[in-house]
Amino acid sequence: AGGDVSLDTARRDRCGYPEVVYGEGKTPDAIAAIIAAQQERGEPSLVTRIDPAAAADLEVLYPLACHNATARTWRLAAPVGGAACEQEAPQGSVAVVTAGTTDLPVAEEAAETLVWMGVAVTRINDIGVAGPQRLAERLPELRDADVVIVAAGMEGALPSVVGGHVAAPVIAVPTSVGYGASFGGVTALLGMLNSCSSNVAVVNIDAGFKAGYLAGVIASR
Amino acid sequence: AGGDVSLDTARRDRCGYPEVVYGEGKTPDAIAAIIAAQQERGEPSLVTRIDPAAAADLEVLYPLACHNATARTWRLAAPVGGAACEQEAPQGSVAVVTAGTTDLPVAEEAAETLVWMGVAVTRINDIGVAGPQRLAERLPELRDADVVIVAAGMEGALPSVVGGHVAAPVIAVPTSVGYGASFGGVTALLGMLNSCSSNVAVVNIDAGFKAGYLAGVIASR
Amino acid sequence: AGGDVSLDTARRDRCGYPEVVYGEGKTPDAIAAIIAAQQERGEPSLVTRIDPAAAADLEVLYPLACHNATARTWRLAAPVGGAACEQEAPQGSVAVVTAGTTDLPVAEEAAETLVWMGVAVTRINDIGVAGPQRLAERLPELRDADVVIVAAGMEGALPSVVGGHVAAPVIAVPTSVGYGASFGGVTALLGMLNSCSSNVAVVNIDAGFKAGYLAGVIASR
Amino acid sequence: AGGDVSLDTARRDRCGYPEVVYGEGKTPDAIAAIIAAQQERGEPSLVTRIDPAAAADLEVLYPLACHNATARTWRLAAPVGGAACEQEAPQGSVAVVTAGTTDLPVAEEAAETLVWMGVAVTRINDIGVAGPQRLAERLPELRDADVVIVAAGMEGALPSVVGGHVAAPVIAVPTSVGYGASFGGVTALLGMLNSCSSNVAVVNIDAGFKAGYLAGVIASR
Amino acid sequence: AGGDVSLDTARRDRCGYPEVVYGEGKTPDAIAAIIAAQQERGEPSLVTRIDPAAAADLEVLYPLACHNATARTWRLAAPVGGAACEQEAPQGSVAVVTAGTTDLPVAEEAAETLVWMGVAVTRINDIGVAGPQRLAERLPELRDADVVIVAAGMEGALPSVVGGHVAAPVIAVPTSVGYGASFGGVTALLGMLNSCSSNVAVVNIDAGFKAGYLAGVIASR
Amino acid sequence: AGGDVSLDTARRDRCGYPEVVYGEGKTPDAIAAIIAAQQERGEPSLVTRIDPAAAADLEVLYPLACHNATARTWRLAAPVGGAACEQEAPQGSVAVVTAGTTDLPVAEEAAETLVWMGVAVTRINDIGVAGPQRLAERLPELRDADVVIVAAGMEGALPSVVGGHVAAPVIAVPTSVGYGASFGGVTALLGMLNSCSSNVAVVNIDAGFKAGYLAGVIASR
Amino acid sequence: AGGDVSLDTARRDRCGYPEVVYGEGKTPDAIAAIIAAQQERGEPSLVTRIDPAAAADLEVLYPLACHNATARTWRLAAPVGGAACEQEAPQGSVAVVTAGTTDLPVAEEAAETLVWMGVAVTRINDIGVAGPQRLAERLPELRDADVVIVAAGMEGALPSVVGGHVAAPVIAVPTSVGYGASFGGVTALLGMLNSCSSNVAVVNIDAGFKAGYLAGVIASR
Amino acid sequence: AGGDVSLDTARRDRCGYPEVVYGEGKTPDAIAAIIAAQQERGEPSLVTRIDPAAAADLEVLYPLACHNATARTWRLAAPVGGAACEQEAPQGSVAVVTAGTTDLPVAEEAAETLVWMGVAVTRINDIGVAGPQRLAERLPELRDADVVIVAAGMEGALPSVVGGHVAAPVIAVPTSVGYGASFGGVTALLGMLNSCSSNVAVVNIDAGFKAGYLAGVIASR
Ligand SMILES: Nc1ncnc2c1ncn2[C@@H]1O[C@H](COP(=O)(O)O)[C@@H](O)[C@H]1O
Ligand SMILES: Nc1ncnc2c1ncn2[C@@H]1O[C@H](COP(=O)(O)O)[C@@H](O)[C@H]1O
Ligand SMILES: Nc1ncnc2c1ncn2[C@@H]1O[C@H](COP(=O)(O)O)[C@@H](O)[C@H]1O
Ligand SMILES: Nc1ncnc2c1ncn2[C@@H]1O[C@H](COP(=O)(O)O)[C@@H](O)[C@H]1O
Ligand SMILES: [Mg+2]
Ligand SMILES: [Mg+2]
Ligand SMILES: [Mg+2]
Ligand SMILES: [Mg+2]
Ligand SMILES: [Mg+2]
Ligand SMILES: [Mg+2]
Ligand SMILES: [Mg+2]
Ligand SMILES: [Mg+2]
Repeated sequence: AGGDVSLDTARRDRCGYPEVVYGEGKTPDAIAAIIAAQQERGEPSLVTRIDPAAAADLEVLYPLACHNATARTWRLAAPVGGAACEQEAPQGSVAVVTAGTTDLPVAEEAAETLVWMGVAVTRINDIGVAGPQRLAERLPELRDADVVIVAAGMEGALPSVVGGHVAAPVIAVPTSVGYGASFGGVTALLGMLNSCSSNVAVVNIDAGFKAGYLAGVIASR
Repeated sequence: AGGDVSLDTARRDRCGYPEVVYGEGKTPDAIAAIIAAQQERGEPSLVTRIDPAAAADLEVLYPLACHNATARTWRLAAPVGGAACEQEAPQGSVAVVTAGTTDLPVAEEAAETLVWMGVAVTRINDIGVAGPQRLAERLPELRDADVVIVAAGMEGALPSVVGGHVAAPVIAVPTSVGYGASFGGVTALLGMLNSCSSNVAVVNIDAGFKAGYLAGVIASR
Repeated sequence: AGGDVSLDTARRDRCGYPEVVYGEGKTPDAIAAIIAAQQERGEPSLVTRIDPAAAADLEVLYPLACHNATARTWRLAAPVGGAACEQEAPQGSVAVVTAGTTDLPVAEEAAETLVWMGVAVTRINDIGVAGPQRLAERLPELRDADVVIVAAGMEGALPSVVGGHVAAPVIAVPTSVGYGASFGGVTALLGMLNSCSSNVAVVNIDAGFKAGYLAGVIASR
Repeated sequence: AGGDVSLDTARRDRCGYPEVVYGEGKTPDAIAAIIAAQQERGEPSLVTRIDPAAAADLEVLYPLACHNATARTWRLAAPVGGAACEQEAPQGSVAVVTAGTTDLPVAEEAAETLVWMGVAVTRINDIGVAGPQRLAERLPELRDADVVIVAAGMEGALPSVVGGHVAAPVIAVPTSVGYGASFGGVTALLGMLNSCSSNVAVVNIDAGFKAGYLAGVIASR
Repeated sequence: AGGDVSLDTARRDRCGYPEVVYGEGKTPDAIAAIIAAQQERGEPSLVTRIDPAAAADLEVLYPLACHNATARTWRLAAPVGGAACEQEAPQGSVAVVTAGTTDLPVAEEAAETLVWMGVAVTRINDIGVAGPQRLAERLPELRDADVVIVAAGMEGALPSVVGGHVAAPVIAVPTSVGYGASFGGVTALLGMLNSCSSNVAVVNIDAGFKAGYLAGVIASR
Repeated sequence: AGGDVSLDTARRDRCGYPEVVYGEGKTPDAIAAIIAAQQERGEPSLVTRIDPAAAADLEVLYPLACHNATARTWRLAAPVGGAACEQEAPQGSVAVVTAGTTDLPVAEEAAETLVWMGVAVTRINDIGVAGPQRLAERLPELRDADVVIVAAGMEGALPSVVGGHVAAPVIAVPTSVGYGASFGGVTALLGMLNSCSSNVAVVNIDAGFKAGYLAGVIASR
Repeated sequence: AGGDVSLDTARRDRCGYPEVVYGEGKTPDAIAAIIAAQQERGEPSLVTRIDPAAAADLEVLYPLACHNATARTWRLAAPVGGAACEQEAPQGSVAVVTAGTTDLPVAEEAAETLVWMGVAVTRINDIGVAGPQRLAERLPELRDADVVIVAAGMEGALPSVVGGHVAAPVIAVPTSVGYGASFGGVTALLGMLNSCSSNVAVVNIDAGFKAGYLAGVIASR
Repeated sequence: AGGDVSLDTARRDRCGYPEVVYGEGKTPDAIAAIIAAQQERGEPSLVTRIDPAAAADLEVLYPLACHNATARTWRLAAPVGGAACEQEAPQGSVAVVTAGTTDLPVAEEAAETLVWMGVAVTRINDIGVAGPQRLAERLPELRDADVVIVAAGMEGALPSVVGGHVAAPVIAVPTSVGYGASFGGVTALLGMLNSCSSNVAVVNIDAGFKAGYLAGVIASR
């Protein structure tokens, strides 16, 4: 996959899943070379932070792949004869929640990662704390999940509130949604790290992929 | 009141209440001099951030004063023949809420300020979001208040949640309660400034006095 | 209003005013769907942070709406047969002040919010502390207001100075006006939080909507 | 448990474990009152951030309790006739790792929490990246764990390195160990949030309790 | 003056005044050695940030010296036969202003530096913006000064306000007075750097010496 | 000058110079209106932060004005019959120094302000500390100046070094030149505030205007 | 080289290498003038941070120069008859390592600087800690180097890990690669400064040039 | 060396020097156990950040050891029959420079580390930029050194200035000396990272050990 790339080919043996491609700043050619190498090894592929032009280029090569423009992800099953496509009988169950509609891209990146890992996803959108009855209505679904992912920007209060209602682990993803003293997600990040609910773990700002991967690892155990 | 002090004697005419004494770093003598000047003008006194030794000294001079050790405040009515002691028929009604028991000193400073202003106070303690049914039980009292003050540290999520339930203005006071990435109240402050509830205004970290004063000004209008 | 949106339809009952639409990052179609839902419920609408193109699109659907390009707001009365258009007999009175002319967009967002809430507004512009006689001339108007909103960037000193002159609550809005160590409004925000005037509450940087909403809630009580 | 405390008595039903007592700033009497209430309800108790004097006071009342001075924790089984003492047949298995010996208090707080939850713990100390062969020797133990907790200060690199070797989720706990630009744990926190290993979630600085609780929730599922 | 010290003996020729001794962390012996060297050269001495014990030690050696405990300074005239003691016919005139009484130590350090430089000082205390008529009363004195030094903590608004009233240069000194988001003087510092008054220059937090030195250099030109 | 502008027409009486127009974000029309008002009052004009298009527009109206594209300034003398054009017999003398060539725009803004104030300017460019003999060669010119302005980015060390060589006041202007941990001028700003040379005062990042104005006020006394 | 530039012509005598041109913000003409002056002095040239257009312009003048578009550098040997072109028999040996492929531009800037200094370079790419066997494979090459440069973004853990394996000095270069709480390289920078490996020195974010220069100075001693 | 310690016994083979003991927070017993283990292996010992009481305890056990109270270090040669005591014929030469006398503890920690490594040290104290002739006098010694270490607090300008005068690598150590906006060494750190002198590498604040170790590794090559 190119002279400058040292693809981590042992990742699947060591960690259970092949290396995921971080698309930011990679040329379509560089991405295509990595995917070809993974297909040859019988592995499925996931590309994150892909831009629309690169996705369009790849679509020509792999028409069966799935491009989610909101999530900025691109997903491809393992080739026939290789490992079976795991999405067919998903294991476990993860709820992916947003506080507001603008948190959707981050939540979708998490959801796509879970689908790639073969884990079932329930999406619950726009239930932030300013309108509290909206969360109340979705509590049964939240209590059913093995893991809950909560994406929120601004003050990032929703993971704490959800964490107070469920026994499962909550993966909090701060988003860069907001303005002024939201500082591109830092305020939400700090709030989540200081959550008074004991079951809340945190990942980086806008790190939908990481939230999804962690939730998938936990839910599929 | 001493050569280095320019007491703002016009404050009561301009703003409705006499100057409040910030006790931090003032000697008992300096405080006593200011109080004597206010008594002479027929004005009640409020000292904040007073340390126990200074309060004990003042108690000898003014045995009828009220020292609240948790709030670190010291309060004295106007002298006989001057303005009547306003606490007797309190106006308006302010709910003073804490997220946890360690937020109590800040809440008490707010409550003492309100009492000094002649405003009725309802105290509601330890109803943070990790145990959500505790807030639910106190909602009727919260909805009855003219203004709600919410003191919270750590992630500071409670003002947003309260703000989603009431129509009245919410004065959020971040407290320096917490550790690690709570940064002495900065995380709570930032969270409150980014509240997705539209009725939330913010004051400085640990600024119980300011929250109380603002709530008093609004509730007594 | 679309699968990803959970409109907070109970907001008017709970808080007195319907949900305001945060226009940033929403498509004209998404905004139009929310407005149609509100019109159906007999509610007036306010959209903030709307971009000119989205406003132009909405103008075709609702020619009677009011678009304020400086404020980046779009306002629509409730439909005939629904709730009456409250702007006709405004209640209370709020002064909206700027330190410099570049603070105008934030002040206008506050003013538009107040008009939407049916509260009377007095605009006082460009009276920052570098030219102190300008404030002196406007003091009578400031002292007449039920609430004063002060928008200021750079060092954000004006709310403290105004707060020293009036008895009413002052809502301080830091603006992102300035350069260098103004840090996009952070310096003004910090200054306002540390105001030595006791009647100053603070909202987020550039949060004209929130300042207006809070002032409106207080002034119309 | 005292007028200022609203004990979250519904916590065990909602979340599986009773409320844990945050000892910082609480008097021995306040802590004793909470523990008495929990014993009455047939619940085990865990107190964190307890100071030695308070622990000594409690030892008189409950001689069978377990005080870990390094961890600053105090643990008490449920009373006879109530829930059985769960530590006897621990479920799951969590490895608790430190980078250096000064990270031990944080790791011990996590370990004590796990013991209180009835989860088996493997302790692996002082295997930071400056001496890489030390980690290599412990890899089999790390690969056996259901969850790995890694406590590290300074640059906080160890969770990433461990995360690259195991398939299980890694809970990273930044510690305030270090000097200069370690900023009391902020550098380690930021490093962990940016971990290039996908299976790393983060909790607050020095938050041994939270790391232990989360690991326990995951390992005992 | 000791093997570890390289006293800058050429300072008076190069800059007009001898090196000033920064007392923080120096032993009384180390300070005494420097002063003896300066006396030998016929130079006056100024020590800043001196602690009371060191000052008491030096008083025994130099009973004619002047120790200002509030300012934490110690001042000694040049010896007989050396340079004349310049304080006798002070040149120029500097107003040293505080916003509140707690800013006094910083202002006194500035004033002592000016006396050491032979510059006349007018002290104006406690005229912060919350009580605006206090500044109005002192305007004639402020307009008479060659330079105005303004020491203020909290939001640090006073230098801007003074700067709007006078034509002379204003040296703003942020002080570490305040709490919460005053961040030990950072908020005041930032506010002063962003002053909308064009004649405001800034020095470090609590840098009374530097403000005094700069004002002295300008006023005595 | 327009309904939103409150021109500070008393500035010349109070401070010696008319109000300077901050061009950032003002339309050419708004600027032209202010200039017309100043010309009518017989005052000279200075516009800072003007963009090239606005300057071109103004050139049509006032062909005798001086536009400095590097400085982003636009300068106009007072009209005939009004105050005389002060540049003809400049008073005092200010050295304007840069550390590197990229600091030039800030230095030029300072120089233009000085010319507008009628003060003589000596420009000394690109003498940063990495090539120390360059400063040594210019020392005589530096020692001749009444005030020295030093503009520097990156580590901002030059003002301290210059301050160690001259007796005059040094106005340090941090510039936003640099990358990485220069943080847009914050590193240079902090370095200058902590200068170990006692004669260094600081203004905001990139604040060439303010440095020039202050130097002009001092040099023309 | 132009009136605003004071080229440091004594640099080669003082430091062993001529001044390197920082291309950012310089016009092609300004760069060409400096290069002509260096050629005249018989010196080789290195330009960093050059943009493609400027490089294309220079290519016309000096067709034998070497432009590295990834590194954003442009390199020219000394002219015939002047100093010999040192690259021909490189001294010492430096390994230039990246954690990920996106760190390549920074690593290439370091490598080009080393080539210009006549030092031999070994490039080792994409061996970050998430795939640990990749580093293990390259250890012999790393142990052979006189100096190791490690460029890494995100959590910046690789220099510590490499430092634990080699005896040579490690120059760590944080890169601005990452998102969210990587803060444009600040997280990597802080991590590297706190490295628990004793042989790790740090340079500015993205400062490939400086890393290369330092490594070259050390390796060629 | 105790159950919680994993001494890095392979360090000497891998890196050339045995593990150095970080004394902060270790009991005298823990330190003594590590030293005994090293003596048994025939290795010399260095303890940093040791407190006076622990050093006194160790003095009883090892009367021939060297305790430097300013540096807070404790040094012991290898036992007879083991490796020879390397200080006897020191290799290379490192200049250790301070800007002011308060930087001495950091410089001494560096110097002690170099002595332990068998490298010759030249100490040059108190030559900061405010008194520039002091540096000029020491230039020959600085130019003779293989490596120069410069410890400086406040604005941290000295490493840049020294770097402009010498060809050797400069290791800059920011110290926590200063007040106000020096932020415990952060300002000096940032300044050093942005040094315009190309030969300046940086280590953590107050990291005298690391500066010494790096300089020793380079000088003894
Ligand atoms: N400019 C604004 N600033 C902050 N909050 C706003 C603003 N405009 C609307 N809102 C609030 O944002 C919420 C709607 O967000 P969303 O669901 O993303 O449309 C409503 O609860 C409003 O009260
Ligand atoms: N470049 C500048 N930096 C800082 N302040 C400036 C600058 N140019 C003009 N000013 C000041 O900004 C004020 C005008 O602001 P405005 O009312 O927004 O035009 C005047 O009082 C000037 O003294
Ligand atoms: N990429 C770079 N990063 C930091 N410093 C550089 C870089 N390239 C060149 N320099 C230094 O910048 C100085 C030239 O700056 P200038 O006078 O602005 O061209 C020289 O002293 C070089 O050593
Ligand atoms: N003052 C110091 N600053 C930074 N690292 C040090 C210091 N002293 C010793 N070390 C390193 O700290 C490690 C020992 O840490 P520990 O295992 O906690 O004793 C060794 O790898 C040393 O290289
Ligand atoms: Mg919504
Ligand atoms: Mg509680
Ligand atoms: Mg104006
Ligand atoms: Mg160790
Ligand atoms: Mg006062
Ligand atoms: Mg240059
Ligand atoms: Mg890779
Ligand atoms: Mg000295």
